[in-house]
Parts: sequence; C-alpha cells; structure tokens
Amino acid sequence: MSTATSDARPTCSIARTLEVVGDRWSLLILRDAHRGRTRFAEFRDALGIAPNILTNRLAALVDAGVLEKREYRPEGERTRSSYHLTPAGMDLKLVLAALQQWGDVHEPREEGPTVLRRNTRTGGLVTVGFLDEHGNAVPDEEVGFEPVPGGPADRPIWC
Amino acid sequence: MSTATSDARPTCSIARTLEVVGDRWSLLILRDAHRGRTRFAEFRDALGIAPNILTNRLAALVDAGVLEKREYRPEGERTRSSYHLTPAGMDLKLVLAALQQWGDVHEPREEGPTVLRRNTRTGGLVTVGFLDEHGNAVPDEEVGFEPVPGGPADRPIWC
Repeated sequence: MSTATSDARPTCSIARTLEVVGDRWSLLILRDAHRGRTRFAEFRDALGIAPNILTNRLAALVDAGVLEKREYRPEGERTRSSYHLTPAGMDLKLVLAALQQWGDVHEPREEGPTVLRRNTRTGGLVTVGFLDEHGNAVPDEEVGFEPVPGGPADRPIWC
Repeated sequence: MSTATSDARPTCSIARTLEVVGDRWSLLILRDAHRGRTRFAEFRDALGIAPNILTNRLAALVDAGVLEKREYRPEGERTRSSYHLTPAGMDLKLVLAALQQWGDVHEPREEGPTVLRRNTRTGGLVTVGFLDEHGNAVPDEEVGFEPVPGGPADRPIWC
C-alpha cells in the first residue's frame, strides 16, 4: 500500500538489458534495424516472422526506448509506421557485434562468416574486445567482475 | 531424401549465438558460472529458478559446449554434478560484459552500477568496445557491418 516510488527492475545490469533484448526475435529485429531496415513489411519479409509477433515485438522495442515509431504516407496509400533506432538502440551495435563475433568463432559454418566488421573510415577489420582507460586492448583473461564496494547487503545478484 | 550432410543452422552468426545463449535463464546461469559458481544448488539458490528449468538449461548449455559436466562425491553423500565453463563458455565473458555495460548506461538504477569491470593485473577500469588490428579503440560510429564479398545469393540474412 506504499506510495513510495521504488525501482522494481532487477539489480543486475545484464538482467535489465535482457528485459529489453533477451528475446530472440527482438534481437533479430534490432539486427535488421542496424542494417537500415525501418518498415514493417521489410522486417516481416526478411525475418519470416508472424505479423502478430512482429507487431508485439516492435511495440515492446518502442516502449523500451530502443526504437522510435514514425508515421509516413506513401503516395495514394494509407498512413504507415516506420521504426528507427534511438541513441540507445544505436548503442546495441556493440552487443550485436559481440554476439556475432562469438558465433563466428564458436559456432562457425564451413563457408566462413557472412559479414565482416570494418572501420568505415580506414577499411580495416574491427573486433570487439576489452579496453583500458587509454583505449588500448586488455586481454580477456585479465578482466574480472568486481562488486561495487559499499553496495547494500541485499544485492546477492550483483552483475 | 538426400543423404548429403548440410548445415541446417542459421546463416547468421548472431542467430547461431542466440540458439546457445538467447534464453534469459541460460545467460543468467552463464553469468553465475563466470562468478565461479559450479554446483546445481548454488545456481538454484542464487537465481531462484525452478529445479526442472535449471536441469533443462544446464543440459542445453552442456550440449552447446559452453559448460562441461563433472561428477564429484561429497564425503558420505551420493555423487553429484558440477558444471564448469569450457573455453567457448569463457569467451562469453565479452558478451556478458557488453550486455552489462549497455544496461548500466541505458537502463541505469539510481544506486549506480553494482559491478565494475577491472583489469585484475593493473586494477584499472575496463570497458567493452571496438578494436582495430593493432588493439586500438575504434569509435562505434565508424564501425559498419559488411557482407562478405562473393557470398552466395541465397544468403538474404547475412549477419
């Protein structure tokens, strides 16, 4: 019966991210958005997803603040909706790239990877990795997860 | 009716990774494995997950090659199983860190992050980012996804 505002979301950042993108369809829609797709019919045809599921997932991604819904009206047709990445959605590029890189290495196909990550300015290949404060690579095995000092005792699931 | 072996898995690396870790419980179990948890009861108590779901997810993660099942027998008790990260499972550290970092930035809590990523050798803070061939940071906005040249025309969903 309390009227105090309290944050009911998970204490764990990974869990909060997964509340937004932890569904497989949602991540595949976001991947297509990062390829430049914006329209309902484009997502539907590319993914082979049932229209009612697509409607549901697009609405959830808009609610989560990673897609923005806009209206457009093709010449002589009814108004339609398009979906555009917000800054938070753009920042998922790194999450998508990390998933992609792991799949290329640990679930490879005989034909090799189907996509390369490149620096569009220099043309050089790009990987995802850990970086120190100076922007230099840190080997994975040197990285540890550490609870924030002074965190409340009721945070058994820090992450 | 062909007997030829063919790769029925998705062409997209992100989709293949999600077949392994796209389930929320699976990622949370893996997160706990990266914290050093190995035993069924530890995962169950920490996650508040139903035992039948935990059994199912652990078996799937073993099948996927990211956890290895081992037997141990506590003094005077029956044989029990423990679950240990394989090299492929260790490599998911980067995927977990990317999800965590996004959650800290875009789904923050008032109390701030509950975990820091540190270089265990130097004590410095670590982020996840894009790297060039020389191990130097590349800004997100300079990174593009590019289909591999010469890929077959039947790969509409490259990623």
